Amino acid sequence: MTGKSANAMWGGRFEEGVDAIMTAINASISYDQRMAPQDIAGSRAHAAMLAAQGIITAQDAAAIDTGLQQVAQEIAAGGFPFSAALEDIHMNVEARLTEIIGAPAGRLHTARSRNDQVALDFRMWVRDQCDAAIEGLRALIAAFVAQADAGADWVMPGFTHLQTAQPVTWGHHMLAYAEMLGRDLSRFQDARARMNECPLGAAALAGTSFAIDRAATAQALGFDRPTANSLDSVSDRDFALEFLSASSICAMHLSRFAEELVIWSSAQFRFVRLSDRWTTGSSIMPQKRNPDAAELLRAKLGRIMGANVALLTVMKGLPLTYSKDMQEDKEQVFDAADTLMLALAAMEGMVRDMTAQVPALRAAAASGFSTATDLADWLVRTLNLPFREAHHVTGSLVKLAEDKGCDLPDLTLADMRSVHGDITGAVFDVLGVQNSVDSRVSYGGTAPRNVREQVARWTARLGKEDLG
Amino acid sequence: MTGKSANAMWGGRFEEGVDAIMTAINASISYDQRMAPQDIAGSRAHAAMLAAQGIITAQDAAAIDTGLQQVAQEIAAGGFPFSAALEDIHMNVEARLTEIIGAPAGRLHTARSRNDQVALDFRMWVRDQCDAAIEGLRALIAAFVAQADAGADWVMPGFTHLQTAQPVTWGHHMLAYAEMLGRDLSRFQDARARMNECPLGAAALAGTSFAIDRAATAQALGFDRPTANSLDSVSDRDFALEFLSASSICAMHLSRFAEELVIWSSAQFRFVRLSDRWTTGSSIMPQKRNPDAAELLRAKLGRIMGANVALLTVMKGLPLTYSKDMQEDKEQVFDAADTLMLALAAMEGMVRDMTAQVPALRAAAASGFSTATDLADWLVRTLNLPFREAHHVTGSLVKLAEDKGCDLPDLTLADMRSVHGDITGAVFDVLGVQNSVDSRVSYGGTAPRNVREQVARWTARLGKEDLG
Amino acid sequence: MTGKSANAMWGGRFEEGVDAIMTAINASISYDQRMAPQDIAGSRAHAAMLAAQGIITAQDAAAIDTGLQQVAQEIAAGGFPFSAALEDIHMNVEARLTEIIGAPAGRLHTARSRNDQVALDFRMWVRDQCDAAIEGLRALIAAFVAQADAGADWVMPGFTHLQTAQPVTWGHHMLAYAEMLGRDLSRFQDARARMNECPLGAAALAGTSFAIDRAATAQALGFDRPTANSLDSVSDRDFALEFLSASSICAMHLSRFAEELVIWSSAQFRFVRLSDRWTTGSSIMPQKRNPDAAELLRAKLGRIMGANVALLTVMKGLPLTYSKDMQEDKEQVFDAADTLMLALAAMEGMVRDMTAQVPALRAAAASGFSTATDLADWLVRTLNLPFREAHHVTGSLVKLAEDKGCDLPDLTLADMRSVHGDITGAVFDVLGVQNSVDSRVSYGGTAPRNVREQVARWTARLGKEDLG
Amino acid sequence: MTGKSANAMWGGRFEEGVDAIMTAINASISYDQRMAPQDIAGSRAHAAMLAAQGIITAQDAAAIDTGLQQVAQEIAAGGFPFSAALEDIHMNVEARLTEIIGAPAGRLHTARSRNDQVALDFRMWVRDQCDAAIEGLRALIAAFVAQADAGADWVMPGFTHLQTAQPVTWGHHMLAYAEMLGRDLSRFQDARARMNECPLGAAALAGTSFAIDRAATAQALGFDRPTANSLDSVSDRDFALEFLSASSICAMHLSRFAEELVIWSSAQFRFVRLSDRWTTGSSIMPQKRNPDAAELLRAKLGRIMGANVALLTVMKGLPLTYSKDMQEDKEQVFDAADTLMLALAAMEGMVRDMTAQVPALRAAAASGFSTATDLADWLVRTLNLPFREAHHVTGSLVKLAEDKGCDLPDLTLADMRSVHGDITGAVFDVLGVQNSVDSRVSYGGTAPRNVREQVARWTARLGKEDLG
Repeated sequence: MTGKSANAMWGGRFEEGVDAIMTAINASISYDQRMAPQDIAGSRAHAAMLAAQGIITAQDAAAIDTGLQQVAQEIAAGGFPFSAALEDIHMNVEARLTEIIGAPAGRLHTARSRNDQVALDFRMWVRDQCDAAIEGLRALIAAFVAQADAGADWVMPGFTHLQTAQPVTWGHHMLAYAEMLGRDLSRFQDARARMNECPLGAAALAGTSFAIDRAATAQALGFDRPTANSLDSVSDRDFALEFLSASSICAMHLSRFAEELVIWSSAQFRFVRLSDRWTTGSSIMPQKRNPDAAELLRAKLGRIMGANVALLTVMKGLPLTYSKDMQEDKEQVFDAADTLMLALAAMEGMVRDMTAQVPALRAAAASGFSTATDLADWLVRTLNLPFREAHHVTGSLVKLAEDKGCDLPDLTLADMRSVHGDITGAVFDVLGVQNSVDSRVSYGGTAPRNVREQVARWTARLGKEDLG
Repeated sequence: MTGKSANAMWGGRFEEGVDAIMTAINASISYDQRMAPQDIAGSRAHAAMLAAQGIITAQDAAAIDTGLQQVAQEIAAGGFPFSAALEDIHMNVEARLTEIIGAPAGRLHTARSRNDQVALDFRMWVRDQCDAAIEGLRALIAAFVAQADAGADWVMPGFTHLQTAQPVTWGHHMLAYAEMLGRDLSRFQDARARMNECPLGAAALAGTSFAIDRAATAQALGFDRPTANSLDSVSDRDFALEFLSASSICAMHLSRFAEELVIWSSAQFRFVRLSDRWTTGSSIMPQKRNPDAAELLRAKLGRIMGANVALLTVMKGLPLTYSKDMQEDKEQVFDAADTLMLALAAMEGMVRDMTAQVPALRAAAASGFSTATDLADWLVRTLNLPFREAHHVTGSLVKLAEDKGCDLPDLTLADMRSVHGDITGAVFDVLGVQNSVDSRVSYGGTAPRNVREQVARWTARLGKEDLG
Repeated sequence: MTGKSANAMWGGRFEEGVDAIMTAINASISYDQRMAPQDIAGSRAHAAMLAAQGIITAQDAAAIDTGLQQVAQEIAAGGFPFSAALEDIHMNVEARLTEIIGAPAGRLHTARSRNDQVALDFRMWVRDQCDAAIEGLRALIAAFVAQADAGADWVMPGFTHLQTAQPVTWGHHMLAYAEMLGRDLSRFQDARARMNECPLGAAALAGTSFAIDRAATAQALGFDRPTANSLDSVSDRDFALEFLSASSICAMHLSRFAEELVIWSSAQFRFVRLSDRWTTGSSIMPQKRNPDAAELLRAKLGRIMGANVALLTVMKGLPLTYSKDMQEDKEQVFDAADTLMLALAAMEGMVRDMTAQVPALRAAAASGFSTATDLADWLVRTLNLPFREAHHVTGSLVKLAEDKGCDLPDLTLADMRSVHGDITGAVFDVLGVQNSVDSRVSYGGTAPRNVREQVARWTARLGKEDLG
Repeated sequence: MTGKSANAMWGGRFEEGVDAIMTAINASISYDQRMAPQDIAGSRAHAAMLAAQGIITAQDAAAIDTGLQQVAQEIAAGGFPFSAALEDIHMNVEARLTEIIGAPAGRLHTARSRNDQVALDFRMWVRDQCDAAIEGLRALIAAFVAQADAGADWVMPGFTHLQTAQPVTWGHHMLAYAEMLGRDLSRFQDARARMNECPLGAAALAGTSFAIDRAATAQALGFDRPTANSLDSVSDRDFALEFLSASSICAMHLSRFAEELVIWSSAQFRFVRLSDRWTTGSSIMPQKRNPDAAELLRAKLGRIMGANVALLTVMKGLPLTYSKDMQEDKEQVFDAADTLMLALAAMEGMVRDMTAQVPALRAAAASGFSTATDLADWLVRTLNLPFREAHHVTGSLVKLAEDKGCDLPDLTLADMRSVHGDITGAVFDVLGVQNSVDSRVSYGGTAPRNVREQVARWTARLGKEDLG
């Protein structure tokens, strides 16, 4: 490639060549070729509209459409000779179209600019990723709901501060992630709805004097409406940022469950057994069953949030309208989207394949004075103590048990009465973990009955087209 | 404060004191006192519900309610003796309530935990900030629309790469920001709707065995419904993160207009004159009129995005449910919210007060070959050249003008014909900037007619309760 | 405060008032008053130099010096009436000085600008924080070294992927943090050395025509030399960013040990018992011993990294020299520095107070096939197997033990020989955890002997003035 | 690839396959193949040491060395069949070595683990990037110094707040960037020195019982010494984070000059003409000369800072020692390093090629009351006014000139005296921009004389091996 040929597309404006550094920093074809389907779809819609409006002839439009379909096939088949001298996907497609159909290709760019194409193609690509995220989330939620369904009444410790707090059910814990992911899903739905306006027709930045029909191209490309301001159309990257924001929050959720899987897989916890599929060994310690996939998913927040930070920083302080800085948007979003989709798929696989170690969970739930709250509540309910006093009495009983090296159910009634004389033998009914979880029937509580109701609610939601 | 008294609320569990470092790192009262109104509203709703459900007596509930109102008044009056030994707003309110009403105060915490309160208070506080952001955005959009209305036909240069591209109208440029801010507004509306579920009743983490009515407290506090999973209720900070995400994107928009104001205020541009109200002088250079407010607003993205990064990082990899790490949420969100509201107010003031320098704008629009596109379009439309050829001809004409040291309208017809022989004198009609902007009537284009229609659309939207 | 008085300092340039929003967004006195000592020290050095150079009289300099000392005392005593109308610490000090000494105060600002003062004061403040960080790190390293010294031969499991990998010693694990923190310390030393150039004398931005002696003021204020370029002097914030970078990496190290403390404090691990001083209870679950301080320290990376991101974003794309955006620097750095110092102090306290649970550590170390590597190494050394074959044999033995539900030392010699016939009874010598750690004497290895050598090395380093 | 073959290296531990998702998320060979030279150098040093210590035979070592050289050549030649089933560069190299030399290859891994290799290879790669950054910075500083040398006395406006403040010289402005980049360079030097410890010999995490000589391998690979703690050695990524921190600050500096280039290239400023080499045209507006390279460089901070945020976030809260999360380090650092090196090269090219528009710079410097400070200083020096009074008088004169529509030198002496009666005609000497810059001879000031001295200082520094 010579500097001269690189300049060919710009109309003879530059007299010097563009050297290798500039090509490296400027050309985007190495990554934006991923948007070829969007670019070609946009061009086909534009050409059809131009013909319908009488701006180009029907023959030219037909030639363009046929030619673009051929280009699409060539690209899909692989081996298309993308050229860095042609900078980007838009120029590459157009140059090939010109080779195929000749002169009519020169009419495709009527009433359109590369700014339009960049804005359109990237928006359509991100819109597709919203759809992919929604599908991935739906599948992952289903995996958590399946675990919840299986273990609606498996008792495990509920933690705060990674300290045993109260007994909960496995199903309830699984459904906590369904809630988080359900919010993620609705965030992608909102983002998709907000971005679903078509920028095509903004031309370079000011609109055009050609009598184009923007409503027609918007409709042809699946948008709800055309954008309302041409300057905004070519300088807006909100859609990408909102996708990255939603992805960051989602990745944070995945990092939390990944952390749980790593901790739960330790020799000390043994709450869960991950499938061999999602673990690996060590080159020097053959006994290791490393939760690699969980660790990698835990890390992915860094990458996705990093992309979010990167793009916000790129956009900071840019005057209107398009600045070349904005070309930095795609690699960040491509990487974040690929990462998110892979993470959702891997997490779905891990959740589906993992095996709760039910006896270990129950044993852990029964230790650590986990029913202290049940005891305090019994004191309130039965002895009518104010909560704060009940809390104090319970604290003293825990301390007594701790000093004796036992748990609460192991105290004798005499022990109990040494702290508060009105306690009766009925108190022992609430000190078992099964009774504890069964009693938590307030809406949103951990009782197996509640879990089953929520499983049913989620199953119904997942069965609907739109989860909103 | 002694370590002993610091321990008083925890029921005699600790035998050692808590020293100054721990107090400094642990106590949140210095900042979470801002949530006093939310905390008291939540407690009043909770007590009323407990009485309605027969869990506490009506007399106790009445005493609690009266007492809480007194506490609210004392705090509102200022000078309330907040205590770091009591750690946080929840304990401070309860301790004062106990002083005022005695024993019944001890019943308020029945079927409730501090985790509930933290989750509830903070969510209500953030919900209020969504409302504040919506109001601030509405006012700022109105300021941009007012500028657009005034200057629907003022011609200015439209820029890409900060290079003069094509003439646009002042009103169109102003409305580009209305579009951005309108998306911001709808993001806050979506976030508000998504967070509007009431976590009260999650208890510590597992729900409760008391027969509470969560639908009642949710309704009393203005929520759409109670949350569906108690573990998620106390470990969720999505509402804060989504607020920060929306705020980050909004702050990015503000940074862009702030950058424009800084550039436009320079001696070289002089596109706008900012009010003295929003500029300051220099201690050593008396002639300076520094756009301080604009610069500070340009910087605010850093702060708000920093808060977003901070909270995502805090949440990364936290196992369920509540971990103390999450206490780091409030200062970040408080600061970001204060910053955003101040920034919106300051930007509204600047936009309302600024004065476009109409002659300078028009002069700038007319230079720099800004109607080259109009020329190219004329060649397509009139001579039926393919766009790419028209583009090439135009490039040659620009080069010719540049070599002659003049602009396009200053070329002679002979000059024109030396490049393409079919050009006629009619071409000069499209080379004026007024003709250029008047011709851009495609939907979303910059024509004054379009601007007026968009002003009317925005005025109608702003008049409605819900902008969605 | 009226707009009129707010303008008093700027020399009658503005005709309109500055209203409350602008004051709120513009005034920095609420936080930059922390730099009063630096500001006054800088002014005293400047005045002394002006007199020495004959630019002001000795009498004026003496009056200024006496007056500044009085201002310093008034501020130190508390209750100084800082005024937002006077915007910042520089103006507040100067206004008070004028009240005290009258006319000579007006000569202090000769050959100086507020830009100088901002750059100087903030740099000196950050320099002090480097010193504080170095002291804090030195103390924290000493705490880890003390733990290492006590437990040089306590055996615990070494983890990769939170899976038991090989036995290590407590002391070795503690010293890993000494290494990390030692690097942190040297980073702060490097940062301090790099920032130790005096910007005073840059004047507003271009230097001055007064015959000032910058070397003298630099020396008086403890700098190595004056800065070499006045434009850079007033627009540079590298010193703050480097401080934040070093703080971020340090906070990351703290987050790692904090995570370990949280995991080690769980009922499932019980590797360590934290002091009551650094844990708290629960309002509803009296049995909880929550590692609050560790959790809060784990979170602090978010805050400090957020500040780093914020300031980098603020600085992005600012043209030279000073822009008001840069006023956003101080709150970020103040908060990050306060956070870091508190975190270092709290971590030192926790490390000093924590108690390793030696039997639990040893028991955990002995499980999980932790000496598989020792077995593989024995096969290489004794049977001269290639490592990869030894590894394969070991893997088969682990699998055999796993199938039998025992650990490696529990296999019989016959079991061993069923996998590889050449194994002899001598193999059992390397399967014990004590033998394992004792054998790891390669430099940097975990053997108690090595740990003691490293403790001695660290003790010697900590005893020196400069740890570099 | 089947799951079976993927497992082959792990010694028959897993019974299930590893499917495509896991391969996609787990395998690093697609990017870590860049570390092949480092990996092979490390293995050669390790083998040589093993033989020197008598741990393997000289023949085996010789076979290994020859084999590794062949592998290196094959990789360098391109087309090496890297296999995702073999996961990473370490396994790929070893597998090929085994094909070439057979059994002896199995002895290479004696007293070594993949953890060692990862830690070593990546550290060596980053060390190389420090060297590359230092070279790139040296060249870029030289380009700025060359501009400074050429334009030591070209007068231009110095800006604060993008408002004309005082006249400065082009050379002085250029040297401000030399100062920034000089600090960057020293940061990379410090980082390189700190990371220059060899982790090889940490084995998996605990050291080894083989009698290895870590000092020998450290020396062979150019390190100053071996690392002192094996746990730290395999879990440390400080070197990567410090590289990213230094890169972020450097990228921030580049963003600042890039912003200046964009603004200076606007039609309104015209301070500089960029070479065609670093600008591009528009597909629809042939007249555009877009500063694309500058814009892209302005954006690169986002990318590099994003990588920094990403890796800090990945590392947050990881317990010792190696966790798979850390595999996310390389892509971030690779991308950031590539970006930085390209940015430095492109900026050097732009700086070398750009042409200051000297007359435009001088004209701009002379407008906007830019010598107001000189006037104020004259009043202090000549009339002995206190600075604050001189400042007030100057402000009134500026206002008078503004009202008359002229600049300060255009006022008459009568105008001057109407504000302060003692002003004499000598005042006009200091109102010219050339006199202004010539007078700023304080150290670090903008006077051409100073600039030439600094050019000489920089030239001398750049001529030395070590710039520190």
